[in-house]
Amino acid sequence: MYDVLVIGGGPGGYLAAQRAGENGLKACLFEKRNLGGVCLNEGCVPSKALLNSAKIYEYASDGSAYGVTAENAKIDQAKVIKRKNKVVKKLVSGVAMTLKRNKVDVVEAKATIKNRQNGVITVEADGKEYQGKNLIIASGSEVIKPPIEGLQAGLEKGFVLTSREILDLEVIPEKMVIVGGGVIGLEMASYFQTAGTKVTVVEMLDHIAGTVDAELGKLLQKNFEAKGLEFKLNSTVTGFGDNYVEYEYEGKKEKIDADYCLISIGRRAVSADIGLENIGVECDRANIKVDDQMLTNIPNVYAIGDVNGKWMLAHAAYREAEVAINTILGKKDVMRYEAMPSVLYTNPEMCFVGESEESAKAKELDYRALTLPLAYSGRYVAEVEGGNGVIKILVDNKRNYLIGAHMLGSYASELVTPLGMMIEKQMTLNEIKEFIFPHPTVGEVIREAIFAL
Amino acid sequence: MYDVLVIGGGPGGYLAAQRAGENGLKACLFEKRNLGGVCLNEGCVPSKALLNSAKIYEYASDGSAYGVTAENAKIDQAKVIKRKNKVVKKLVSGVAMTLKRNKVDVVEAKATIKNRQNGVITVEADGKEYQGKNLIIASGSEVIKPPIEGLQAGLEKGFVLTSREILDLEVIPEKMVIVGGGVIGLEMASYFQTAGTKVTVVEMLDHIAGTVDAELGKLLQKNFEAKGLEFKLNSTVTGFGDNYVEYEYEGKKEKIDADYCLISIGRRAVSADIGLENIGVECDRANIKVDDQMLTNIPNVYAIGDVNGKWMLAHAAYREAEVAINTILGKKDVMRYEAMPSVLYTNPEMCFVGESEESAKAKELDYRALTLPLAYSGRYVAEVEGGNGVIKILVDNKRNYLIGAHMLGSYASELVTPLGMMIEKQMTLNEIKEFIFPHPTVGEVIREAIFAL
Repeated sequence: MYDVLVIGGGPGGYLAAQRAGENGLKACLFEKRNLGGVCLNEGCVPSKALLNSAKIYEYASDGSAYGVTAENAKIDQAKVIKRKNKVVKKLVSGVAMTLKRNKVDVVEAKATIKNRQNGVITVEADGKEYQGKNLIIASGSEVIKPPIEGLQAGLEKGFVLTSREILDLEVIPEKMVIVGGGVIGLEMASYFQTAGTKVTVVEMLDHIAGTVDAELGKLLQKNFEAKGLEFKLNSTVTGFGDNYVEYEYEGKKEKIDADYCLISIGRRAVSADIGLENIGVECDRANIKVDDQMLTNIPNVYAIGDVNGKWMLAHAAYREAEVAINTILGKKDVMRYEAMPSVLYTNPEMCFVGESEESAKAKELDYRALTLPLAYSGRYVAEVEGGNGVIKILVDNKRNYLIGAHMLGSYASELVTPLGMMIEKQMTLNEIKEFIFPHPTVGEVIREAIFAL
Repeated sequence: MYDVLVIGGGPGGYLAAQRAGENGLKACLFEKRNLGGVCLNEGCVPSKALLNSAKIYEYASDGSAYGVTAENAKIDQAKVIKRKNKVVKKLVSGVAMTLKRNKVDVVEAKATIKNRQNGVITVEADGKEYQGKNLIIASGSEVIKPPIEGLQAGLEKGFVLTSREILDLEVIPEKMVIVGGGVIGLEMASYFQTAGTKVTVVEMLDHIAGTVDAELGKLLQKNFEAKGLEFKLNSTVTGFGDNYVEYEYEGKKEKIDADYCLISIGRRAVSADIGLENIGVECDRANIKVDDQMLTNIPNVYAIGDVNGKWMLAHAAYREAEVAINTILGKKDVMRYEAMPSVLYTNPEMCFVGESEESAKAKELDYRALTLPLAYSGRYVAEVEGGNGVIKILVDNKRNYLIGAHMLGSYASELVTPLGMMIEKQMTLNEIKEFIFPHPTVGEVIREAIFAL
């Protein structure tokens, strides 16, 4: 009898199992594919290895503004992929070691929930039954493949790729179409455009980057366009053919030729074939319904990470894992989403946390906003030639604390951490003004923005 | 009659004048050399422009581990210096504009304090007298030039350079000796070694990087040595000759040949010829004595920045400027130094804030410490091939909050901001554990370290 059964070995699942072990609970983890899940094997981490190589390539091929020249700069895609695989392997083995150290049993097979009797939950995997007092469902999400003409054939022929296959593409194509201008689409667009591909992004909405603050989203688009990337907004893909993608714009059909096409229009919770019905777990469409302690409608059954559909982000899953384990341990803990950071590891990079102007307006919040160029930071000016980065902050008018922060430019990915802390802790502007921001850093613009407000 | 007279236009001085203006006070600023002071013109900011070019050059010439190759990579030092000058010019004009916008009068001349009568302070500059109700002394610091044989001649011949001249050196020398292994010496060592110079650092102490935690200081030294840099520790320079530096090690004299020599053994407050004696301002050696509101022994006379000798750092001066202005405005504010961040912009970069193990031991604090490799961060592994970066945290045993943090590795310079916030706010470990750190970031190692403790 286990204290905790965990279905799914992605960030949510493996951290839940790890924290269970660290706290003396006996846990069993089921993973049908790869320990580390999508994030570690075919998502956030491997894409960062690629984007880092692109940054290095950009410097090598275009450093003259900084007094650096080189000839014949090349990016060897096969080598980039090989290195990416090595990075993934190292990190996955780190996860395995951590689980072992915490005495977690790992079952590498698909798990199905069988029943719940007298408070005991039974899960079957590889023909064997496992029993536990608690169950944490962390079965993740999968790429949405809408019923568009030619998509299935395109996927089979290898013309259409998902976020999984594109990370193993060993060539730099001449032309690529990316369907979907969200985070994944834009990161891959940034990579391939830098590496030499002519990239066209087709997006159904009138803007890129999903829920990003519109002002910054437009600025990011400008940066991309200056590098030669093309956007087809308000455009719906209607078909995939032999080396072309067909889309509709203002009622007219158009075609774009391409060597490859990435489809990245979103992900859907994996909840269909894991036996939820056998114990009566409620869903809202594909998403398992949970409260703020990650409990489903069934006692002792939790759902964390992508499968609850709240924020499909690894760090949301991490924190949800801890809330679930703390709840199991009887420690009061609740999940808060007010300070959930998001990062786009494009070049330039972008981050946001808390409200955007659009969300603040929709909620009718009483706020004020300020946008400041990153050129207010001496470090930014010293390091980025001709950069147009900005920081934007939103402040609650009554209580005078930060409710949203957005940055476009270098170090945004790491600076979202202190911005999130300020929002989470509801620090007042006066409190923030008294912090000492090291000089010269890009982070100083946080302080500059607060003082300029 | 001015509300505030400010002597010195460096970070402390110009921010004091700016904040005075923002708050409706009429300020007059005196600067004898360059607006922006040492920091902006010949210190922290220009050196970052150089170090950034070095990083780009390193990528261009050695990116093969990341799948990037290029031939014939070159760094054009004259171009690097030209760009640096452009950056400085842009930022200095930004300071001038900000002061103008805040109606600060700027007098570009050396100022001397004349007297203080009936609470009114008189300062003379360029033959004219200026009167103010308050005086902020922000006269900065200057390079220490000890009475070593041949130093003066070496400086005159241009063989010996200070931090000022080295930032205008338009060649990459073959061999360079750096006297003093503190922050400035190490940053310049990092730059020139990367750019192709054979650098030898001569340091009197048995370790480099001053008050940095010894464990991390040694690791930084290892990184430098792996790049071919040589250190002569426990070594005292005894003379400068024709293209050589002489030093004593264990009682024996040795010589190192060099094309240039940088002397960077420290800075001393500039308090000698500004007329302090005319109003009776007390000093401790060269440093003007102040309380925690930056007040000297004379009413309405403040001393901020390097001249008070507390922390010779631009961001200390910034905050001290605000404390002085708030005090003048009658707003309660005090200066705290517990969370003063320090950054070394070497490659790899390094930061620290709060206690080191050495300082914690000296104060007999009840603490525990933990050092964790940055390889616990997926982003670090994805971006840094063969990196040996670490984070080290020190926690107060009784009250369970962070009292010191140290990092060696990428993004350390920007991550010292959240680390400093945690220390300043005395956040407990449990509070920090509940923050959501975006994944994958290097900042996640903060969380990993706290959980691993």
